This record gives sequence, structure tokens and C-alpha cells, in this order.
Amino acid sequence: MPDYRAPLTDMAFVNKELLGMDHYQQLDGCEPLTEDLWDAIVDGGAKFAENVLAPLNRNGDEQGCDFDNGQVSTPEGFAEAFRQYGEAGWQSLSIPTDEGGQGLPGSMSTLLTEMTAAANYAWSMYPGLAHAPITCIRAGGTEAQKATYLPKLYSLEWAGTMCLTESHCGSDVGLLRTKANPNGDGSYTITGTKIFISGGEQDITENIIHAVLARVEGAPEGTSGISLFLVPKVMVNDDGSLGERNAVHCGSIEHKMGIKGSATCVMNFDGATGFLLGEENRGLEVMFKIMNTARLGTALQGVCLGEAAFQGALAYARERLQMRALSGVQNPDGPADPIIAHPDVRRMLMTQKALIEGSRAFIHWLSRLNDLTQYGSEEQAAEADDLMSLLTPIAKAFCTETGVEVTNLGVQVFGGHGYIREHGMEQLLRDMRIATIYEGTTGIQSLDLLGRKVMGSGGKLLRNFTKRVHKFCEAQAGNSAISEFIEPLAAVNAQWGEITMQVGEKAMENADEIGAASVDYTLFGGYVALAYMWAQMAEIALQQDGDFYTAKLATARFYFQRILPRAEAHARAAVAGAGSVMDLEESLLHL
Amino acid sequence: MPDYRAPLTDMAFVNKELLGMDHYQQLDGCEPLTEDLWDAIVDGGAKFAENVLAPLNRNGDEQGCDFDNGQVSTPEGFAEAFRQYGEAGWQSLSIPTDEGGQGLPGSMSTLLTEMTAAANYAWSMYPGLAHAPITCIRAGGTEAQKATYLPKLYSLEWAGTMCLTESHCGSDVGLLRTKANPNGDGSYTITGTKIFISGGEQDITENIIHAVLARVEGAPEGTSGISLFLVPKVMVNDDGSLGERNAVHCGSIEHKMGIKGSATCVMNFDGATGFLLGEENRGLEVMFKIMNTARLGTALQGVCLGEAAFQGALAYARERLQMRALSGVQNPDGPADPIIAHPDVRRMLMTQKALIEGSRAFIHWLSRLNDLTQYGSEEQAAEADDLMSLLTPIAKAFCTETGVEVTNLGVQVFGGHGYIREHGMEQLLRDMRIATIYEGTTGIQSLDLLGRKVMGSGGKLLRNFTKRVHKFCEAQAGNSAISEFIEPLAAVNAQWGEITMQVGEKAMENADEIGAASVDYTLFGGYVALAYMWAQMAEIALQQDGDFYTAKLATARFYFQRILPRAEAHARAAVAGAGSVMDLEESLLHL
Repeated sequence: MPDYRAPLTDMAFVNKELLGMDHYQQLDGCEPLTEDLWDAIVDGGAKFAENVLAPLNRNGDEQGCDFDNGQVSTPEGFAEAFRQYGEAGWQSLSIPTDEGGQGLPGSMSTLLTEMTAAANYAWSMYPGLAHAPITCIRAGGTEAQKATYLPKLYSLEWAGTMCLTESHCGSDVGLLRTKANPNGDGSYTITGTKIFISGGEQDITENIIHAVLARVEGAPEGTSGISLFLVPKVMVNDDGSLGERNAVHCGSIEHKMGIKGSATCVMNFDGATGFLLGEENRGLEVMFKIMNTARLGTALQGVCLGEAAFQGALAYARERLQMRALSGVQNPDGPADPIIAHPDVRRMLMTQKALIEGSRAFIHWLSRLNDLTQYGSEEQAAEADDLMSLLTPIAKAFCTETGVEVTNLGVQVFGGHGYIREHGMEQLLRDMRIATIYEGTTGIQSLDLLGRKVMGSGGKLLRNFTKRVHKFCEAQAGNSAISEFIEPLAAVNAQWGEITMQVGEKAMENADEIGAASVDYTLFGGYVALAYMWAQMAEIALQQDGDFYTAKLATARFYFQRILPRAEAHARAAVAGAGSVMDLEESLLHL
Repeated sequence: MPDYRAPLTDMAFVNKELLGMDHYQQLDGCEPLTEDLWDAIVDGGAKFAENVLAPLNRNGDEQGCDFDNGQVSTPEGFAEAFRQYGEAGWQSLSIPTDEGGQGLPGSMSTLLTEMTAAANYAWSMYPGLAHAPITCIRAGGTEAQKATYLPKLYSLEWAGTMCLTESHCGSDVGLLRTKANPNGDGSYTITGTKIFISGGEQDITENIIHAVLARVEGAPEGTSGISLFLVPKVMVNDDGSLGERNAVHCGSIEHKMGIKGSATCVMNFDGATGFLLGEENRGLEVMFKIMNTARLGTALQGVCLGEAAFQGALAYARERLQMRALSGVQNPDGPADPIIAHPDVRRMLMTQKALIEGSRAFIHWLSRLNDLTQYGSEEQAAEADDLMSLLTPIAKAFCTETGVEVTNLGVQVFGGHGYIREHGMEQLLRDMRIATIYEGTTGIQSLDLLGRKVMGSGGKLLRNFTKRVHKFCEAQAGNSAISEFIEPLAAVNAQWGEITMQVGEKAMENADEIGAASVDYTLFGGYVALAYMWAQMAEIALQQDGDFYTAKLATARFYFQRILPRAEAHARAAVAGAGSVMDLEESLLHL
């Protein structure tokens, strides 16, 4: 496995120079965050990721999880790392102090997660999913429920899950069949089977708190009849001690392509006792609160595993000697030159770097916007919410698709040595591959973006963003040093509006036009968003001296010259219309 | 695992209508091939692939190969299938009758391989690699060696390998260190360690004939001092009976991302006895004979595993019910519509279909050209050889990169069910992933194309092709029905020349320009080549009635509207220059 080192320099650049530390001063209701505190948190997270989590990653994949008669065992060391993480207070970093947390804004958790998840993605899913019941209880729980469950979830003495998917119901949550019958005492009896439940069973914590979507007997069909329940694995007595085992059991675990250290469980609710969170039939409202941060967290997976793949590929490219450079011998004392001397290897590394650093900036910006929706002024919150509505599905779709590309390139740089398990590069690709699927596939994100957000707002949400970019470009109009970035940015930004008009017109005739255009439209948007981030980073780099800024500027240039041209291909495909996609009768697809 | 069914209709279309059966009549020196015989061979291969090989594929991945004290065990059923394949005479299908084979042209073997390798890629590597010593012996062996080894290799009583890679030497074969010392009796003592040897050890055949590259004591360094040797696992007595065990042993097998049923071995030659094939120091000449067909075979891997992924995805998309179609309810009696009703799912399926069918046509055309190099007139052979020189690296790079895309889309259509091993979709992606690496990475193919073939011929090899496309387009000038295909084809064909000029001019200043442009240049060429194939297929389809032709035409349209626009992105990247790739000092790549 490549040695993961937290990319502290770039994280600091994004947060301190690009996004600015002023952000933290304007938040109201969370703890004041000084630069010293920021450094201390990020350094502490880096050490934990590098020293505790990274060493467990390869074995986590090889050993995986085992299932035996309802019990799940997790890879060696996972439980101890989880305990340490809980004890250090990391899980409650962004929970308000008056609710028992550390009171920092959510963007600090994003920074922490970038490092822990890069070091060991499978492990990071256990604390990640333990956030699900926390969010559900905070949103819909009674004071008594909060008092009973939250402290143990913050300390990670207990973990948790989100139980949504059933075998016949993934993207289409309205089809779910799990039943809830009121017991008359405020509790419900939950019956049904959930699949793909991360951390549904494990040997790490003494209790697991399941957040479960189910339909109360007699509730409407579809999404308007879904309620949210809390189902503890072990019942909790009034005094907080553990009581009887609840009737929820793990039936089996999945054998997956990757994230093998994370137990993906089939969970059988055989008349389990559950407690309603919030109101009956309004479970999805609470769920959607989880979904937004979960989508951002999944977008981050591309940065995490991409960074790990980049670090591995870079180290290998410097070490591996094969052939002489086209431009002349670079390593006269060796039998061949390091492959980093070869332009195509450099192209792969620069592609990784440009996509990772652009996505990092993009996601941390969105995470800052998320802070504003919670702790900003009303105006700031509204503006941030509008931007996030538009950009979150783009980030989720784009950063996971490019994350697959970046981890795939990591394998390619290693050649045959990337395909064998020993070096850990193929694990990064396998661990990454799920991300374009879960928390809403790329197709689902794209329908959300183009159908609900862009068309649904009559273009308003898009114009919020393109105007912002337009203003940025206008402000740079006199600056010839930056025009190599501003001109193409302004062009694709304007093109975004044009594409939207064209697709919109077609969609008035034929609803399929939205779906046919959606993914190319979304990826186009992703390339524009990253161009915006890269232009802003270039603006800063142009004003500074030093190696880091030289590298930033060179990478911005690479992004604009070698990556952004892809936007044109997506634009052409997006406006090509639904005809060639849908005209062929489905029965004729294979003859 | 999806049920693999050989795509007989499309294979027949490509061979009988697009490429034409006349081809077989003009070949001189191989058996006359009637349509009945063609059908019988393809049907027989299809049955073997579907009924014998496909059922072994999932278990082959799960069980994999085991290594214990020098012995390798292969998955259940592999040995028996191998025996049946040998007995049926499939291995010698394209060996001339006067050498003891079936005497059919190589394109028939390509057809057979498309089916067997699609059904079970890992298995197909055993007979595939057994061709390596066959080719080497036919090219450089003595009559005695031919008599000793070839019959057993044709019948597959014995298998074989190609031993090239060493741990420090992959793409750069000139670095190899394996030594050969003459014993004075015509034999040599071979010492060294080879890695990544497919089928280096197995429990299938009683003997394994290794074709080994090594350097004779005192030979020049680099590629000009490499010789080719035959090293049998078990020595063969003069009477053909098996003698003593030779000093070549398997030290371990690799744990890989995929093709787990294929044993990838570390082979230790500890003073093994080897026999020179051809002349000393000229081993690579023979090797390159293998490489050309091996590259075409690897290109075919994209079609094989792509087809399997497409069949799986299509079946699932028809079955899986999620959400209602945007254009209205399609399945009123069910709880939701099949996901094939959703335009984005259709887009994924059409992308698969367009890439697979285009690549199939492309590769079978190249395979026909290969027939002409062997059995055509001198003029035909020269023309075919020129076209193959240009197009083989494109086919290898393009069809494997798009093969990864197509198998990746297969996972995506299945959603979470694609990520678990149960349905076999993720196996197809894992099995596919090696193909952009072995037999020369995408980067190596692209250097070969742009550096050696295009620039090395002063553009002549490219003009051979673009003129051919130009003539085709001109011949269709008056045909308005086909102009939607001809106009964009003519445009990208002309653009190819322009890009080449631009890159060539830059390269005169800076040799790095070739490497920096190469992969984008090659993928651009791949999209042009497929556009040429699709335009020809559209021409036929426009003149015929019936469902198959309707589907062909619709898929051609999809290719031109939705896939070909990618060429523009590659063109822009290819001409962007080496600056943004190479300007950043490598020490600054990560700070």
C-alpha cells in the first residue's frame, strides 16, 4: 500500500488562501475557530489517519469481514481504531456544544473525513454511518430519546446505520415494503428485510442504533407513506443500561468488489421494536437531511481515494526505471530513466493532480456553504442553500466519476504491478467504484440536477451560479496575466446557459429529453465548476512566489489546456437530443 | 453471472455483409472456406463457449488458482474444458494443413476467440498462451523441434507460455537479465527469474513449453542482445516420450484484481536446459510476430467482456423495476417501470452497443487484413500490412480503454447489485482491467502509433488510411440518406491530418511533444476508425429492411451523435502541446 500522507499543504491553501479563515469569524452559534485551533485539529486528524488507520487498510481488504451464524467479525484493528476515534471526540466534532459536542462547523468534519477516509475508506464507513442515527435523532427525536442515545453515539460506544434499501427498492424508495405496526404504547413493531446495510452488524460496539424507513400499516403508497424509526439492536432500559436483544438480526453479508472491511449486511427485522422519529409518513424529510451531507461525503470519496492513488503513482513513477526519456537521458548512472520522465506518465499524474485538487477546492467550498446554511445570516443561508442545491448533485456525480478515473490511472501508472494486489493500487479502484452508485447513482444525481434543480427552478438556481462566475470573470477583465484562464472559463460559463436553453426547449416537447441529456449535462457542469475553482486558485497563485504557487499555476494551466476540452464533448452530447437514445425499440437492442 | 450467448447475428453481419465472404475465395494457400463451413465453425465455437466455458466462469473467479510448494491448481473444470478444446482441434484451426493444422485463415480463430474469451476470459488465457511456443517454433524452430513439439501443442496435450517480463523490466524489454550459457551441445543453460507468466505452472497438461527471452553470455546490452529459447518443463526424449524434469519451477503466483482463474506465475530458471529458436540475438524479431496477433487478441478482450457486460446489463434493465418513465407509465400492472424505460439507462446500453459493435467490426476487419498478409497477393499483403501497422496499436489502445468503459457501465446499470460479486458484473470489469496494461500499455501503443508509425513513415501510413476513408466518403457524395454519417466522418478524417501536422511541427522542436500528445492522438484515431466502420455499416443498413438493420442504423446514429463528439476533446488535448504536461518540475508535483 502506498504510504498515505495527509496533503496538509493543499488543504491549508484551499482553506486559508482560497476560501479564507474569515469564514469562521462570521459564523454565529458555533465555536470560534482560530487558525491555531484549525491547525491543531487538522494535524491531529492527519496523525490519526496516517498512523492508526492507514496501516490497517491493506489487511482490511485482504481479511475483509466474516459472517458466522448472525455474528459479523471486522478486520483486525478496526475495533480498536474505532474506540480511539470515539474517545478522542472526533465523532462529535461538529455537534453543537449545548448538545454535547465540540461545537465546530461541519466543514471541520469534512477536513477530518478527507484524511481518515483516504487512509482507510472501509473503516471510515463505520463512524460515517454512525452519524445517520445522530442526524435522525437530532432532527426528529424527543428529549428523552436524545438523552438516551446521543451521548453514546457521540462517544462511539454505540454505532448506527441507515436502513433504506430493500431488494426490490433502491433508487425508488417509494416501493419499500418494511412494515411498522403501532403497539399502542408509542412503540412500533417493525417487520421486513433491508439490504446493503453498512455496519448493520459488527463486533465493534455493544449496541447498534438502526435508523429504519418503514411504512405504517394503512399509510399511503409511495413516498408519502414512509416513516422513520429508531430500532436499537439491544433495547435500552430507562436507566440507560442495556436490556433485551431486539428482534433485528443480520442474515448474511455481501461479497463485494471493494470496501471489503466494511460489513454490508442483510438485516432482518422480525417484529423488532422501533420508535418513531418525527411524524408518521414524514420520514423522508428527515432522510433528506442526511442525504445532502451524505452526497457531499461521497463526492469527497473521489478526492480521498484519488489522493491516495496519486501519492502511490507519483512515488512509483519516481522509482521505476524503464526506457530513456524522449528528450534525452535523465538518469545516466542507471540502466534506464524513471518513468516520470516520460510525457505520458506525466500526463497521467497531472490529470490526477488537476482533478483531485480542483475537486478538493470544490468540495471544501460546498462544505463552507453548508456551514453558512446552519450558522450564517438568513441572507447568507439562503444564498448558500441555493448554491448547494445546484452544486451538490454535480459534486456527487462529477467527483465520483472522476475519482474512478483517477484511481484507474493510479493502476495504469503502475502497469502490471498495479493489477496485482500487493501494491494496493487496484484496491483503491475497487474501493472507489461503489461511489458512483450509492447515495444516488450518477444518473439519479443528474436527474435531480437537470430536472428538479435547473428546470424546476426555471433556470434560477443555475443563473445564481453562472452570474457569480460571470462577475468573477468581469472583475479580472483588465488582468492579462490571468486571461488564459478567464477566457475559457467565461466561454464555458456562457455555454452552460445556452445548453440549458436548448435542452429546455426540447424538453417542452418530450420529457425524455431531460433524462437523455442529464448525465452529459451534469458532467459538463462539473468541468465548469472545476474551471471556476482553478481560475480562482490561479488568481491567487499569480500573486505569490514560491514552489507551491508555481505548481498551482502549472496545474491550472494543465486543467484548462488538457482537461476542460472534455466539456465540449459533453456539451455536444447533451444537446444532441433524445432521438438517438430512445428511438430504437428496446426489444431490438440485441438481436 | 449473466448467461452469455454468442452474438451470432452480429458476427454474421460483420463477416458476411460488411466484410464479405469473397475474402475467403481470394486467399491462396489456405483451405477454401464456404459459408456452410463458416457457419459450422462459428456454431460449434458458440456451443462450446456457451455450454462448456461460461458455466465455469464465476467459480473460476471465486475459486481462483492455488499455489502449494511449486504446484498450481486451477479452478474446477478448467482442465477438462481444455482437454475437450484440444481434442476438438480448435487450437490448430489456423495452422496450415501441411503443418498438421486445419488450414483455415486466422480470422476464423479470431471469431472463435471472441466467443470463448467472452464466456470465460481467464480460461481462454491457457490456450491463448499455448499459441506462443507454436508461433515461436514455427518461425524459428528446426524440423526436429517442429516434429517434437508442434503436434502435442496442437492437440493441447502440452501447453505453453511466453516468458518476457522480469521484475525490473516490463515495457523496457532491453533491460532483461535472464542469462543463457551455451553448453557446447547445441543446448543452453538458462538462469533467471521471470514474472507475470500466464500459465507458467498448472495442473492441466503433462508438459509446458516455455518460450523464453534471455541474453547469451557476452551478447550486446539492450534489445540487440536478446535471444529466444524453448524451455520445456519436462525434457522430451528422442522418441517423444517425457524424460527428466527440467530446472524451471514456479516460485509463487500473483494475487490479482481479476482473471483469477488464470495462474500468473513467478518462474525460476535455475540452470534450466533451453534450445535456441532462430539465431542468437535475434529473439525479438520472432517475438514481434507474436506481439501483433497478441495485440489484436487483447483488443478483442474489450469486445468479449464488453459483450458479456452488455448482455448482462440489458437483461437486468428489462427486469429491474424502479420508478416511472419520464414520458409516462410503461408498465401499468407493475409497481414501477423497467429501468430500460429511463433514458439514462438507455444511454448507457446504447453506449455499450455502439462501442462493442463498432469495435467488433474494426477488429474483424483487421483480422481479415492479417489473413491477406499471409494468404493474399503480394500487393494485397503489402497494403494490408501497411494498414495493420497503423491500426493495430489503435485497436489495442482504443478497444481496451473503451472495453473498461463498457464493463464499467455494466456495473453501473446494475447499481448496488453490480457492485456485489453475486451477479458477475464486477468480475467482468476486474477481468477487463488488465487489458490496457498487458501486451503493451495504452501509452506504449500510442508511442508506437504516433512516434514509429505516423511520424516514422513521414505520415505515409496515416495517409493510406485517411485516403481510403476519403474515397469512401466521396463515393457517397450524392447519397443524401447517408450524409448524416458521411459529413462528420469526412470532417474528423480531415481533422486527423491537421492534428498530425500540428503535432509534427511541434515535435521538430521538442521530442516530448510526441509523448505528450500520444494517448489523446490515439484515442482520437480510434473514434475516427469506429466512425468509418459505423458509416460503412450504416450504408448497408440503409439498403435493407428488417429489425436488425433498423437497430444497426439507430446505433450508427447514436455513435455519431453521442460518442463521436469525444474525438473533439481528444483533438484539442492532443494539439495543446507538451508545455502544460512537462513544464512543472517533477519535484514540485506534490508539496
